[in-house]
Amino acid sequence: MVAFGVNDLREEEVIVAPPKAGEVRMKVMCNALCHTDIYTLSGQDPEGLFPSILGHEAGCVVEAVGEGVTSVKVGDHVVPGYTPQCKGSDCMFCMSPKTNLCPKIRGTQGKGVMPDGTSRFTLAKDGSTVYHFMGCSTFAEYTVLAEISIAKIDPAASLEKACLFGCGISTGLGAVWNNAKVEPFSSVAVFGLGAVGFAVVQAAKAVGASHIVGIDVNPNKFEMAKKLGCDVCYNPKDHGDEPMQQVLVKNSPTGFGFDYTFDCTGNVNVMRSALEAAHRGWGQCCLVGVAAAGKEIATRPFQFITGRRCFGTAFGGWKTRDAIPMLTDKMMKGEIAVDHFITHRFNGVGETTKAIDALHSGDCLRAVVHYC
Amino acid sequence: MVAFGVNDLREEEVIVAPPKAGEVRMKVMCNALCHTDIYTLSGQDPEGLFPSILGHEAGCVVEAVGEGVTSVKVGDHVVPGYTPQCKGSDCMFCMSPKTNLCPKIRGTQGKGVMPDGTSRFTLAKDGSTVYHFMGCSTFAEYTVLAEISIAKIDPAASLEKACLFGCGISTGLGAVWNNAKVEPFSSVAVFGLGAVGFAVVQAAKAVGASHIVGIDVNPNKFEMAKKLGCDVCYNPKDHGDEPMQQVLVKNSPTGFGFDYTFDCTGNVNVMRSALEAAHRGWGQCCLVGVAAAGKEIATRPFQFITGRRCFGTAFGGWKTRDAIPMLTDKMMKGEIAVDHFITHRFNGVGETTKAIDALHSGDCLRAVVHYC
Repeated sequence: MVAFGVNDLREEEVIVAPPKAGEVRMKVMCNALCHTDIYTLSGQDPEGLFPSILGHEAGCVVEAVGEGVTSVKVGDHVVPGYTPQCKGSDCMFCMSPKTNLCPKIRGTQGKGVMPDGTSRFTLAKDGSTVYHFMGCSTFAEYTVLAEISIAKIDPAASLEKACLFGCGISTGLGAVWNNAKVEPFSSVAVFGLGAVGFAVVQAAKAVGASHIVGIDVNPNKFEMAKKLGCDVCYNPKDHGDEPMQQVLVKNSPTGFGFDYTFDCTGNVNVMRSALEAAHRGWGQCCLVGVAAAGKEIATRPFQFITGRRCFGTAFGGWKTRDAIPMLTDKMMKGEIAVDHFITHRFNGVGETTKAIDALHSGDCLRAVVHYC
Repeated sequence: MVAFGVNDLREEEVIVAPPKAGEVRMKVMCNALCHTDIYTLSGQDPEGLFPSILGHEAGCVVEAVGEGVTSVKVGDHVVPGYTPQCKGSDCMFCMSPKTNLCPKIRGTQGKGVMPDGTSRFTLAKDGSTVYHFMGCSTFAEYTVLAEISIAKIDPAASLEKACLFGCGISTGLGAVWNNAKVEPFSSVAVFGLGAVGFAVVQAAKAVGASHIVGIDVNPNKFEMAKKLGCDVCYNPKDHGDEPMQQVLVKNSPTGFGFDYTFDCTGNVNVMRSALEAAHRGWGQCCLVGVAAAGKEIATRPFQFITGRRCFGTAFGGWKTRDAIPMLTDKMMKGEIAVDHFITHRFNGVGETTKAIDALHSGDCLRAVVHYC
């Protein structure tokens, strides 16, 4: 599927060139849709390039490897990662336990090309170039990635489920476990009950948070939220003009706010609510959602002076190649439940548009499109 | 000295009532001026009440104790604290190692009265009420405080020096040691080279920061900054329209920003610079300065998503009654140098106005007014 422009997604025949040195070509077996794909397709992403092949939550099988590739071989089951992990001893980001933001191929990835500055995609009909997206471009039967962007997983794992670890679910889990480091017996507020928000709820429950609340304008989400771990759910529409941070602080276990708050909406006003709903003295606010271009989060510095902290997460702080296999193993052992995330299934690359419609509908968490 | 209104500070005879239960009356021996006093006097503090007695960095001797007071006795040397520490087992803030924000008398302190809702100050000439300020009100020969706001120090310590631990210097040291927890070999940027900023520089140097830069629009501060630990100093005026965060990131040791940044100005635009000058992946920004009423800090959420953290400090995270004696002891042992902070000295309550003029002049760090 080629995104030719804003909301212009069309099925086209694309030639996928063989992998160059340090690159891997893979057959995409299935693809889950993430809001970031839709966000870029809608033209709101200032760095979005057209024409390009979107998609970044996939389950794949290695089909060919370029010169010097050693970490995967033909036939391996893999999950593409939009954050690479070069593991170089000269990469202070990969060497640091504090971050997962390897900048190795950031420049070229942001420009929609492979590390050598060129694209592997050309339109069959006229030979024109199609750009890569987030270093992944998985809305295609075949794609090419840098070796450092590929996580090799257990071939016994379901690719349909493992593909969820390519972005949203991993991000939600990691925001809680790696970035916020939520402690047992703490109170947690989660803004936005989509797939990422639900992963946050699950992760908080798993580490023993004792009071979890969910906030969403769609009350249809509340049943699942409670099943996954929410004690209470709030619909901001039920509270008129009263700011949600005020409602939440008033109804928090201590009356001083929540130990940990998470924004999973990407809306900067909600981010402010999340920050200001954090507990006086030690509350931590983690921004998980991606804001639209040019938007800013604002608050009175008093909120920080009185003990609140604000930070964000990118891919849940996970180092792609180390983490995705580990998360997949946990899923296989039943330690991380993911089945409930897959609410819709489609078949064939061409049905990507149906999957997008499903994700827009509001009752969809993840729509997986199978290619084989 | 009674603050009758905006910039209307006059020497007046005030009757200071005896301490009630849980209260302590003390003779103020000396007083250092802090920008917060001036800020409130200027009318910018929305919670500032008039008429009131300002002042909150003092060295005192206990003169009388109210019923039930056990932690100090007549003759003890003490330093008033604007953040109380009730030490109650029912106070989740005092019991938590994460914060120093005991809320025990917050309500009455904010209203300028003692915990029983009344003031201990009346004007001699007409018996009218004068309000308390920050729970301290030390611009007076005598004042009354709640017992939980008083730190008892070694009587062998110089009160002139110990009084500095009542606010600014403690705040700067604690921001580095308690809130940011600066690590050895890290890079540090300090915005605003006043007394607080210098304390931040000293504290960062003490824990082994390997690269410290200071930023101030007054280059007269640079010599002292370098003496205390700064490797480089920047004057934003030397960089035209180029945002300081850009200048700093470009000139940081790694090219990705500073491991720790501190705003000691209270200016929300500078706060933004400090946040955005923090290192990609793990940079921490600590807000130390107090912003003017209604001002907001804003930034693109992208700054958080790419690994920066923002938080603040109130009194350096120190628990008043535990920390001030400990800091005073460290000063006596020569582990914390404070002599250089006292740049101006005056005598008598009436000279408080001269001290204010000195603090405005720009070459003053701390002006101490001696009353005895």
